[in-house]
Amino acid sequence: MSGRRTITVELGERSYPIVIGSGLLGGAFDLGEYLAGDDCLIVSNDTIAPLYLDKLQADLPGRAVGTISLPDGEEFKTLDTASSILDTLVASGAHRDTTVIALGGGVVGDIAGFAAACYMRGVAFVQVPTTLLAQVDSSVGGKTGVNHPGGKNLIGAFYQPRIVLIDTDTLATLADRELRAGMAEVIKYGAIADAEFFAWLETNMPALLGKDPEALAHAVRRSCEIKAEVVAEDERESGRRAILNFGHTFGHAIERCQGYGEWLHGEAVAAGMVMAAKLSGVEPSELSRLQKLIEAAGLPVAPPRVGAAAMMNAMGMDKKVLGKRLRFVVLESLGAANVTSDYDPSLLDQVLEAAS
Amino acid sequence: MSGRRTITVELGERSYPIVIGSGLLGGAFDLGEYLAGDDCLIVSNDTIAPLYLDKLQADLPGRAVGTISLPDGEEFKTLDTASSILDTLVASGAHRDTTVIALGGGVVGDIAGFAAACYMRGVAFVQVPTTLLAQVDSSVGGKTGVNHPGGKNLIGAFYQPRIVLIDTDTLATLADRELRAGMAEVIKYGAIADAEFFAWLETNMPALLGKDPEALAHAVRRSCEIKAEVVAEDERESGRRAILNFGHTFGHAIERCQGYGEWLHGEAVAAGMVMAAKLSGVEPSELSRLQKLIEAAGLPVAPPRVGAAAMMNAMGMDKKVLGKRLRFVVLESLGAANVTSDYDPSLLDQVLEAAS
Repeated sequence: MSGRRTITVELGERSYPIVIGSGLLGGAFDLGEYLAGDDCLIVSNDTIAPLYLDKLQADLPGRAVGTISLPDGEEFKTLDTASSILDTLVASGAHRDTTVIALGGGVVGDIAGFAAACYMRGVAFVQVPTTLLAQVDSSVGGKTGVNHPGGKNLIGAFYQPRIVLIDTDTLATLADRELRAGMAEVIKYGAIADAEFFAWLETNMPALLGKDPEALAHAVRRSCEIKAEVVAEDERESGRRAILNFGHTFGHAIERCQGYGEWLHGEAVAAGMVMAAKLSGVEPSELSRLQKLIEAAGLPVAPPRVGAAAMMNAMGMDKKVLGKRLRFVVLESLGAANVTSDYDPSLLDQVLEAAS
Repeated sequence: MSGRRTITVELGERSYPIVIGSGLLGGAFDLGEYLAGDDCLIVSNDTIAPLYLDKLQADLPGRAVGTISLPDGEEFKTLDTASSILDTLVASGAHRDTTVIALGGGVVGDIAGFAAACYMRGVAFVQVPTTLLAQVDSSVGGKTGVNHPGGKNLIGAFYQPRIVLIDTDTLATLADRELRAGMAEVIKYGAIADAEFFAWLETNMPALLGKDPEALAHAVRRSCEIKAEVVAEDERESGRRAILNFGHTFGHAIERCQGYGEWLHGEAVAAGMVMAAKLSGVEPSELSRLQKLIEAAGLPVAPPRVGAAAMMNAMGMDKKVLGKRLRFVVLESLGAANVTSDYDPSLLDQVLEAAS
């Protein structure tokens, strides 16, 4: 059993803690002081609710708790689903002091957070992420929203939670493929911001995939620390926060070309990181280390064969915008990233050949 | 022709100007510097677009301007309508540097602002209000949103515009009833914050209703100054901003009991202000001055006969919450308001008798 650790996301009056530990759900942590009042609505999904809803309720002693369970899956991350949460809030007479609590993965957190941002122009919000991806990425930093048929996350809000409560025990029930997909984001933090952490991941990947509690707790903690630091510096992504998108320009293009749901987001990001590292022109030895770590995590190091032209298109580079330059997150070296539009177009073509 | 005047809403890095004057639309004012980029979407409605769309476009020289015209009316202030704006943004390939411009009254501004807040987690937003109510109230201060079948403005965001551009000439085409309804909010500003302005309104109400441009410009200006000052102090209504709701607790209850669309919002607020003044226990002479000014504006000084119990219910005071206390904005005297829940319940009953 690993010790409890708290990281603060420093955002002035909107600062909040990320509390990470084993056994936090089930009554060991009193969420009371993070609620706006006595009334809560827990938003979860049909997969997670049966596993953890009772345990979360034990952390809410004496509170009036409503629940809504969403269908599980990215395809339900829509304005209609957000609207159904708003309907539930209205129907239950929720008021300014009601707190919305997201219990689940990234989809649940994104939709619930957006509903909390919109209800009465914003009610208190709490994140209880149960997947690795949500614990190290989507639950931290305040990006909430839903998809539009025209693109992912096109509708949303920057809306910070009051606390992110991460019980690492929930990873025990996570499917292996989901664990690996979340690991892509963990590897990303090492690659963009911490060479030492990257090296630690190289050593500990087998333990992580074996769900060693200590190892997972350390990976979640260090990932959250890096994300919290970057978000504190640039909440609304006007600058440095963009480095968190390392591998995501290519990754999103892969998802768009394949149709969503084929590869998991983390799988597409994994291949995207290798592509971005190649575009960066890092030392061959470092590129090789990145590829090997991604492979060790059981993740793809090359894009699916969706076609180089289709990838270009999916990145918004159709023929109408010749001369336009994309912005990519590139590595200076393992542990240091930059955002640039000063890349070599012929190198980009070469990188995209992997998708041909 | 009145001179151009600029009031700044002081909100740190989100500060913005309210520019008020005659003849600002039609090419006399270049909105360029307030846009995020070259692309704009003007959101208007079927009544206002034919009158002012061309003129607004003249203030956007060399810009790529799309337009969407909403059906006119409070009944269209829904999440579905906001969603149709989002669809238009997606379909037109709008990006982070697209600016959403609201041209119309409060309904258009509220919906368009909410869509701007949600699209890609927030794009630039500009308010060009064309009704008195929107010019003195809804366009300033960042409250955006839509109605839910369960209540008004239940879904929304605090989202500030980059500029509020008020061409007072647009009031020339405003229906008399709409002008009077907007005047309720103007009177409100005098009552809650400026005894001198209140006295000025007593003298100048005939000129205002006669649409004297100088008088209207002064009323709009002073109202915006007061609102800007209150909003700067308390953007998210955690305290003092609530005084802007003078007359609104009763007013909203009137609208809810009647069904929306019977009385205009300003008409309900007018009667609500008289009720709130009675609850305040102000000097009879001051109550009388308030009533007379509201009457002079052609507005109701008493609620419709919807029933005292129905009003109580509509204010959320049903039998289940006996002992609960409402919060009302009360007048200390003309020009000074407070928020309190320390009222005399029997006096409240007496005030509500007017609705019996």
